[in-house]
Amino acid sequence: MYREQIKVLDCTIRDGGLINNHDFGHDFVRHVYKNLSEAGVDYMEIGYKNSRELFSSSEYGAWKFCDDDDIRKIIEGIESRVKLSVMVDVGRVNLDDVTPASESPVDMIRVASYVKDIDKAIFMVNNFADKGYDTTINIMAISRDQGPELDEALQQIEAESKAKVIYIVDSFGSLYQEPVEWLVKRFKGILKSREVGFHGHNHQQLAFGNTIEAIIHGANYLDATVYGIGRAAGNCPLELLVGFLKNPKFDIRPILDLISDEFIPLRNKIEWGYIIPYAIAGMMNEHPRAAMALRKSDNRENYREFYESLTNTGLD
Amino acid sequence: MYREQIKVLDCTIRDGGLINNHDFGHDFVRHVYKNLSEAGVDYMEIGYKNSRELFSSSEYGAWKFCDDDDIRKIIEGIESRVKLSVMVDVGRVNLDDVTPASESPVDMIRVASYVKDIDKAIFMVNNFADKGYDTTINIMAISRDQGPELDEALQQIEAESKAKVIYIVDSFGSLYQEPVEWLVKRFKGILKSREVGFHGHNHQQLAFGNTIEAIIHGANYLDATVYGIGRAAGNCPLELLVGFLKNPKFDIRPILDLISDEFIPLRNKIEWGYIIPYAIAGMMNEHPRAAMALRKSDNRENYREFYESLTNTGLD
Repeated sequence: MYREQIKVLDCTIRDGGLINNHDFGHDFVRHVYKNLSEAGVDYMEIGYKNSRELFSSSEYGAWKFCDDDDIRKIIEGIESRVKLSVMVDVGRVNLDDVTPASESPVDMIRVASYVKDIDKAIFMVNNFADKGYDTTINIMAISRDQGPELDEALQQIEAESKAKVIYIVDSFGSLYQEPVEWLVKRFKGILKSREVGFHGHNHQQLAFGNTIEAIIHGANYLDATVYGIGRAAGNCPLELLVGFLKNPKFDIRPILDLISDEFIPLRNKIEWGYIIPYAIAGMMNEHPRAAMALRKSDNRENYREFYESLTNTGLD
Repeated sequence: MYREQIKVLDCTIRDGGLINNHDFGHDFVRHVYKNLSEAGVDYMEIGYKNSRELFSSSEYGAWKFCDDDDIRKIIEGIESRVKLSVMVDVGRVNLDDVTPASESPVDMIRVASYVKDIDKAIFMVNNFADKGYDTTINIMAISRDQGPELDEALQQIEAESKAKVIYIVDSFGSLYQEPVEWLVKRFKGILKSREVGFHGHNHQQLAFGNTIEAIIHGANYLDATVYGIGRAAGNCPLELLVGFLKNPKFDIRPILDLISDEFIPLRNKIEWGYIIPYAIAGMMNEHPRAAMALRKSDNRENYREFYESLTNTGLD
């Protein structure tokens, strides 16, 4: 019943960190690591590898930078087969900060890129691959870039990059099942020698359904987060994905424990999930930026005005 | 782009009433009716038509009984093209309480039935149809009844009943897209002269995605509720469905107003939505009964124990 090639990547700390400046405490991250290990998850993405020249260490927590030594403190003494991943954004990492894989606890580096930056992403990915890392390219905001520029980017990736997995990233949570089917088929049609991944956002409560859709059409790398934590509406809930997958290596119970012990209390402090302005942004294929600003204002429950502000911006 | 045959049925008061004993106040229900009218929704299901001999008027609100006079007080003075629907359960209605359609504000009666009760459902539906109502049969808990008994029930409905629409009801919120596809195709294959409907539950955040799946394969009657209110995890959120559908008659803004003004405050008083024990019940294809009891206990966030209580019940 199960497809052995399927890999589940938990990006709780990395994507969840976008709503708390990556300021998760040591014990919290260690608890996540320990329980993901017990749950049989394949990868844990622990944060971003950002340059300290671009972001201040006083403003952001450790998982904005992912120093190898900080990661070692998380994993030491915990028996685990979980591989570790970090994400880098095009233009925000100092390549010299990245040591050879043989000296690092990190197994995989994922490069997040818009279609227009794909040349830079390929350059970075190949640098990391040469250092011995597994690599991926995660194509963000794909709902905005579905024209011939996408085909060109995919052809270039197939021809020039060493990335092992290419992800479809529904940054705006605006995809429905049919566009997911169309994208997975398009990726697989061009990327003959790579795996395809899917990273959903939950603005319209479709992150899990779209992940299933991607699985149906052959995506094998699947992102999720515990209790769906993540920017704006958050991501595909890991517990739902593990409940769906039939691979006997998975055990949902340590994930349920994490939710009981850590994520229910955390959700009372910071906000993510099904929230109407994010749903509206998803319907409109818009970045959730404006919705996030609204949620910090006194006008946070005035949905009509927000809706009209997105629809009434005439373009000529 | 849009399919004219698609009809949206809002069952906010009927399914939402399952978590507050149908005790919505007059002003609340009138506000819902007015805004659904402005939104262009096709049907509003206002409650159950239950026998007052079986349920106490002191324990339940007006929408457990749906007296014609109570309904008239809701709609009077509001300009509307919304048709009104009530639901009846097999064995819980006194057929003599149902006046001819020509004397009632109700347009449609929906009969909720398990597969095993389909003979009774057909008898009731034909009685209501003879009185001039549009009718539907809503086959509940369908995830438990997918064997040859389902085909037989559908054949009997096609041959003997006057129901206009036959609904697939995912009572346990356990269906994924592929089973939805399979069921819609099976229904359409047998029910040649009827419309197929879909009523999702949101235990695994799939009510909206499954509704889209049902649309793709030809279901034309779609249930939803404002802000997804409903028993346990609730239903397909009406605002998402209307945001997805392209029929120009729909206007999402009055629904957004309802959420801002009524449903955000209500959600602070009563609980529905994505809650882990309901997700677990959905994964297990179980009635949410045990999860609802858990949520009323001191043990409400102990998910592991709940999960194990559902998996460790050995059967021989």
